[in-house]
Amino acid sequence: MTAVTQTIRNGVDTEKMFATLDLIKDQPELAKFQFRASNRWLGGSHNRSTIKDFHAAGGEDTSRTEAFHIEAGEPAILLGADEGANPAEYLLHALAACLTTTIVYIAAARKVELTSVESMLTGEMDVRGCLGVDDEPRNGFARIGVSFRVTGNAPAEKLREVVERAKQRSAVYDMVTNGVPVAVEVSTD
Amino acid sequence: MTAVTQTIRNGVDTEKMFATLDLIKDQPELAKFQFRASNRWLGGSHNRSTIKDFHAAGGEDTSRTEAFHIEAGEPAILLGADEGANPAEYLLHALAACLTTTIVYIAAARKVELTSVESMLTGEMDVRGCLGVDDEPRNGFARIGVSFRVTGNAPAEKLREVVERAKQRSAVYDMVTNGVPVAVEVSTD
Repeated sequence: MTAVTQTIRNGVDTEKMFATLDLIKDQPELAKFQFRASNRWLGGSHNRSTIKDFHAAGGEDTSRTEAFHIEAGEPAILLGADEGANPAEYLLHALAACLTTTIVYIAAARKVELTSVESMLTGEMDVRGCLGVDDEPRNGFARIGVSFRVTGNAPAEKLREVVERAKQRSAVYDMVTNGVPVAVEVSTD
Repeated sequence: MTAVTQTIRNGVDTEKMFATLDLIKDQPELAKFQFRASNRWLGGSHNRSTIKDFHAAGGEDTSRTEAFHIEAGEPAILLGADEGANPAEYLLHALAACLTTTIVYIAAARKVELTSVESMLTGEMDVRGCLGVDDEPRNGFARIGVSFRVTGNAPAEKLREVVERAKQRSAVYDMVTNGVPVAVEVSTD
């Protein structure tokens, strides 16, 4: 029982984590993942994504028994009825969630036991861009601010190092700060 | 009744839309929005964002009566228990949702009545990056593919023009393709 207790840190099975890292080091082809979302318009500003299967570790991962259904909408001022958070807010959620999980996993690997991770994100947008009123402001956020509060059984300096390392490894932080090539195809029948 | 019917197209109140655009043209300072998300770690790969208030049109917008609570998690192969879609999948959702809403609004402005908008998004990731196994692959998606199927009462060429214009105006498409400056602050007490 002692050994089992020690392998779980921050709710992460570190034994399984290190085994996964070793496996991927040995067989890099297993590291090729593909994530997916399908989306359907439901009227006005309301649409819904369905997320379930993905490709991982050399094949289709079918471990998920249920799909996630995620609603998007807009507030009244942007002509919606709050059918869900809006797309730009979901981008903030994706960023917050990825940095948080990366902090938690890195802390687990470094034997730091966390007691809390909280964050507040803000994104500044001049909506003249996305509304097509003016070409000068960009369509998206001009900048994003992330304010983390992280506590645990380690000195402040070590906790800050964990956050710094998370910035260097977070998938969504990389995408949001550096951008990703996006190819759009359209069919009309 | 006829006038009311005509102002709603694709579920969008076009009269309100054009009035909003005129207002923002006249008073550009009303276009400054700030969206927000707060996030809290719940253990392991599980965290939750709360999204409610935002700044819009010169003040705090308090029109939302309920907050959105959005779960993030990871599948078993990434050491989670499917507590929610994962952060990278949420980024795909944000992109799908924003392009879709932008398509719908642009179509409404151009008097195109849509009958369906569906999309399938894929993101290719070599997880050696985000897992810290190898510095060569980037942490996020190497590329994202978006496949739209759009139908409505307009020729294929016009529907394609609407999608093309949506790429030029979507807030999340801009952010995901071009990146955004992100400033991260940390407190540890």
